[in-house]
Amino acid sequence: MLAATIRDQEIMIEQHPDPEPVGEEVLVRVRAAGLNGGDMMQKRGLYPAPPGYPEDIPGMELAGEVVAMGSKSTRFEEGARVMAIVGGGAQAELALVHERLLMPVPAGLDWPAAGGLAEVFTTAHDAVFVQAGLRPGEHLLVHGGAGGVGTAAIQLARAAGARVTATVRSDALREQVAALGATAIPCEDFAERGPFDVILELVGGPNMPENLTALATGGRISVIGVSAGAKSELNLLALMGKRARIHGSTLRARPLEEKGLNARLVEREVLPLFERGEVSVPVADTFPLAEAAAAYERFAAGGKLGKVVLVCGE
Amino acid sequence: MLAATIRDQEIMIEQHPDPEPVGEEVLVRVRAAGLNGGDMMQKRGLYPAPPGYPEDIPGMELAGEVVAMGSKSTRFEEGARVMAIVGGGAQAELALVHERLLMPVPAGLDWPAAGGLAEVFTTAHDAVFVQAGLRPGEHLLVHGGAGGVGTAAIQLARAAGARVTATVRSDALREQVAALGATAIPCEDFAERGPFDVILELVGGPNMPENLTALATGGRISVIGVSAGAKSELNLLALMGKRARIHGSTLRARPLEEKGLNARLVEREVLPLFERGEVSVPVADTFPLAEAAAAYERFAAGGKLGKVVLVCGE
Repeated sequence: MLAATIRDQEIMIEQHPDPEPVGEEVLVRVRAAGLNGGDMMQKRGLYPAPPGYPEDIPGMELAGEVVAMGSKSTRFEEGARVMAIVGGGAQAELALVHERLLMPVPAGLDWPAAGGLAEVFTTAHDAVFVQAGLRPGEHLLVHGGAGGVGTAAIQLARAAGARVTATVRSDALREQVAALGATAIPCEDFAERGPFDVILELVGGPNMPENLTALATGGRISVIGVSAGAKSELNLLALMGKRARIHGSTLRARPLEEKGLNARLVEREVLPLFERGEVSVPVADTFPLAEAAAAYERFAAGGKLGKVVLVCGE
Repeated sequence: MLAATIRDQEIMIEQHPDPEPVGEEVLVRVRAAGLNGGDMMQKRGLYPAPPGYPEDIPGMELAGEVVAMGSKSTRFEEGARVMAIVGGGAQAELALVHERLLMPVPAGLDWPAAGGLAEVFTTAHDAVFVQAGLRPGEHLLVHGGAGGVGTAAIQLARAAGARVTATVRSDALREQVAALGATAIPCEDFAERGPFDVILELVGGPNMPENLTALATGGRISVIGVSAGAKSELNLLALMGKRARIHGSTLRARPLEEKGLNARLVEREVLPLFERGEVSVPVADTFPLAEAAAAYERFAAGGKLGKVVLVCGE
């Protein structure tokens, strides 16, 4: 099979042996695989794949068709349309996925949308609802509202009856983010727009002192990205005074059973919203697998709304 | 009535009008009232009493006898032995308490123990179990194991089947802390004693970077004191990698309904441990109310195990 391959911090397309499913594994013919911030870090050698996943083939999410099953796999049949988060190896013609990580593709969703759904909607759902416990009527601030996780979080929070404010760096994208249901504001304006019950932090350290100031009593900050730096200052007396909570989280390092629970939660609480057309996956751009390097450049350039997705086959 | 009174950052004993209970209030003849870190801050003008409490009479916990009830108060009868956390005003001969904040004094507990129970056991229970969700078999680190909240947290965690390590600054007190069921260690030694599932932070900012290093995956840090300073550094990437949670909390600023819930939880989950003799209130020293200034000096001097308590009457 062909696969995007990391060589000396560059993306190549190389031939790899076809993988074979054993036990509860399913072999998926990948039709679409979204790019994520983690891929950029892995390309730079900063975010290695967890044990059991290909070291040199990037890609943390995919959608495609079941083409073969291990002897213990029973959840799906050949030809089923499935999607999943994986620890790595998604940006290839074929990928192995444990069947407990697979989710059915909602009816009516095309391949690019399905291939860019799992990582960002699972991440946003986990951070905003499972970790931070956003409730109807609360006010959510999304830092980085134009990205994949940001657009997912805005839509999920709106569908759950919350009010959403989102910071958006690019002037050109603010209108599109507003169309998702958020009040879209420049990054430097957020402090006076609170108080916020939940803050989804995708940008990182520099925001933290003002996050705490803008937080409501009993508020929660969910940190899942540090693109602007990991170091931050924390005033513990302010944290106590607000009775606040700060969560840090990543999906990738979790054990199989936790990832399986995340997939079940998304099947139950998120996929029905796609079936009813209440949420969607904004796809900024698609590239054929053979042009993966160009897709990485497009992702790194920023200034886009939603996902960059690699597509395979037809 | 006589009451400890804050004048120009000093503790005096002054005459105040006897308070009268209305509605759901209960008038308590105070028999014992513990000192807490918050009193020291209030004396310095840094931690004012919340609205509705005496501004100049300190004291956040008490035990005593019901001597009169407001017209809507039904929970206790005259003469009942009660104890409570209050927003202020406990260090006096008489104090008004909303009946939903009162708890019955466990059978067999003497006045100094009862007067030093509510604040530290409620705080420890809330921080360790309600906020941080300590589970049987987990490993708790208590920073400041010899103080009131520290000794309460150690005993509650042991009674709940957790393992406890406690830092103790004073060499002389380490043996007494160990007798409560903790592995007692010098403050600077904690980093290599982990991983810890829950860290109870009573000391503050300087510990935070090493707290995060010593935390287990999925661990929780509960910050309820900053005696060594409020400023800290937080590496968000480390927080994400550990999938960790940092809580800040105070009891004093909470609304009546939350304080009532705390009292009901302590009645259900903590007071039975006193009745069975599984936990106790270590009382380091008692002072008559008239010597409140000396009690504050004793508290501030440190180097004690457990509570400093003012006693009234007899």
